[in-house]
Amino acid sequence: MAGKKWLRLVKSLHQKKYRNQHQLFFMEGAKAVGTLLEAGFVPERIFVTLNQELLFSHSQTEIISEQELKKISALQHPNGVLGVFRMPPQQAITSEDWIVTPEDWIVALDDVRDPGNLGTIIRLCDWFGIKNIVCSRTTVDCFNPKVLQATMGSIAQVNIVYSNLESYLKSLGLPIYGAVMEGTSVYQTALPTSGILLLGNEANGISASLMQSVDAKIAIPQFGRETAESLNVAMATGIVLSEIRRR
Amino acid sequence: MAGKKWLRLVKSLHQKKYRNQHQLFFMEGAKAVGTLLEAGFVPERIFVTLNQELLFSHSQTEIISEQELKKISALQHPNGVLGVFRMPPQQAITSEDWIVTPEDWIVALDDVRDPGNLGTIIRLCDWFGIKNIVCSRTTVDCFNPKVLQATMGSIAQVNIVYSNLESYLKSLGLPIYGAVMEGTSVYQTALPTSGILLLGNEANGISASLMQSVDAKIAIPQFGRETAESLNVAMATGIVLSEIRRR
Repeated sequence: MAGKKWLRLVKSLHQKKYRNQHQLFFMEGAKAVGTLLEAGFVPERIFVTLNQELLFSHSQTEIISEQELKKISALQHPNGVLGVFRMPPQQAITSEDWIVTPEDWIVALDDVRDPGNLGTIIRLCDWFGIKNIVCSRTTVDCFNPKVLQATMGSIAQVNIVYSNLESYLKSLGLPIYGAVMEGTSVYQTALPTSGILLLGNEANGISASLMQSVDAKIAIPQFGRETAESLNVAMATGIVLSEIRRR
Repeated sequence: MAGKKWLRLVKSLHQKKYRNQHQLFFMEGAKAVGTLLEAGFVPERIFVTLNQELLFSHSQTEIISEQELKKISALQHPNGVLGVFRMPPQQAITSEDWIVTPEDWIVALDDVRDPGNLGTIIRLCDWFGIKNIVCSRTTVDCFNPKVLQATMGSIAQVNIVYSNLESYLKSLGLPIYGAVMEGTSVYQTALPTSGILLLGNEANGISASLMQSVDAKIAIPQFGRETAESLNVAMATGIVLSEIRRR
């Protein structure tokens, strides 16, 4: 049985305020938790139900009842494993560990609100070997349980910085490519070996003030009928990253 | 006030069985309903709440109360418009209207189960100008409300056939490109001007029996760490269709 104090703590971690206060977050699922452990994330506790007890040999593993897990899980159907981890320190992109080499692209997100979208984008960055994401402070928290669920463990592979986008991007000194509806076809755009791919809010796109810093507007051409609705922001990220890496 | 008979009918259309029986489906949202109307879909009724009454001049428009709409809507937060439409006839891809010209690619789906994934794939086909989708009979119904919501009206632009994939694909006589984890890089694969892009089930990929019909296995290369988890099926569709259209 897990202690009441722990159960209350995990419940509080559903909220960003308490995640930041405790510098802790939780991840669910054996695979995802395993990925974080492999990547060197430090678990405070790994709660497992009886049928999952042999999955982890980690000393912080603790058995929890199905009922208890249901109370603290963010899932409709909890899957037997919930790990509580210490947040990794947010590292400046220009720091030694995350220095931008000439082959690096950075993904920047301006006010992306949907947890599934951010999770998918983190997963895509892992897939395409993008090491750094910079988010506006209005972008959904990357330790939000729904974001984490969609990353499938990729959170361990990508450095995510929350900052004032305008000043931060300027400080990096890289060309900024903004994904927009009306822009040059990404297929016809020369893409350097390093740059910033900037994507905007689901409904409103890139904010007007930030748009002034954009060096090139790129778009994914429509081959069917012309529509006013853009592709989903995560889909656009995937298609442009594929195009960047292909070359 | 909408008649009780109509309310009961729309509620029944949440289920595939009744959609097929009545050959009707419903779509929610002013934009999406407008797209269907523009595309020539025949509405049986368009229910609108009082604040939305001026949106459609169509003779089948009928005012409905917020409470009534809530009862028949598939949305947690109904958005004031629900149109009931007649299903378009499923057209054979080789029929005159949908004949495969040399520039055509077809998307084939083997047992795609998630409504959001199918909806996104339909939307992508519309975006990239793919006119035909062939689905295995185990693939989620394209008139499922959750699928329709994700298509954002694109259902009107794409012909969707449900059939036995093995025999149907064979009858088309086009080369079959299967999207798999272990395949030739899509960036290095010669892609003809027409072919079939085949994608499989979210968990299990393309079924073993169908795999025997695949002419070329293609994959989206991983540039980060190697993972056993593939990209989401809709994301893979988007990236490969972009690659097909780019050339």
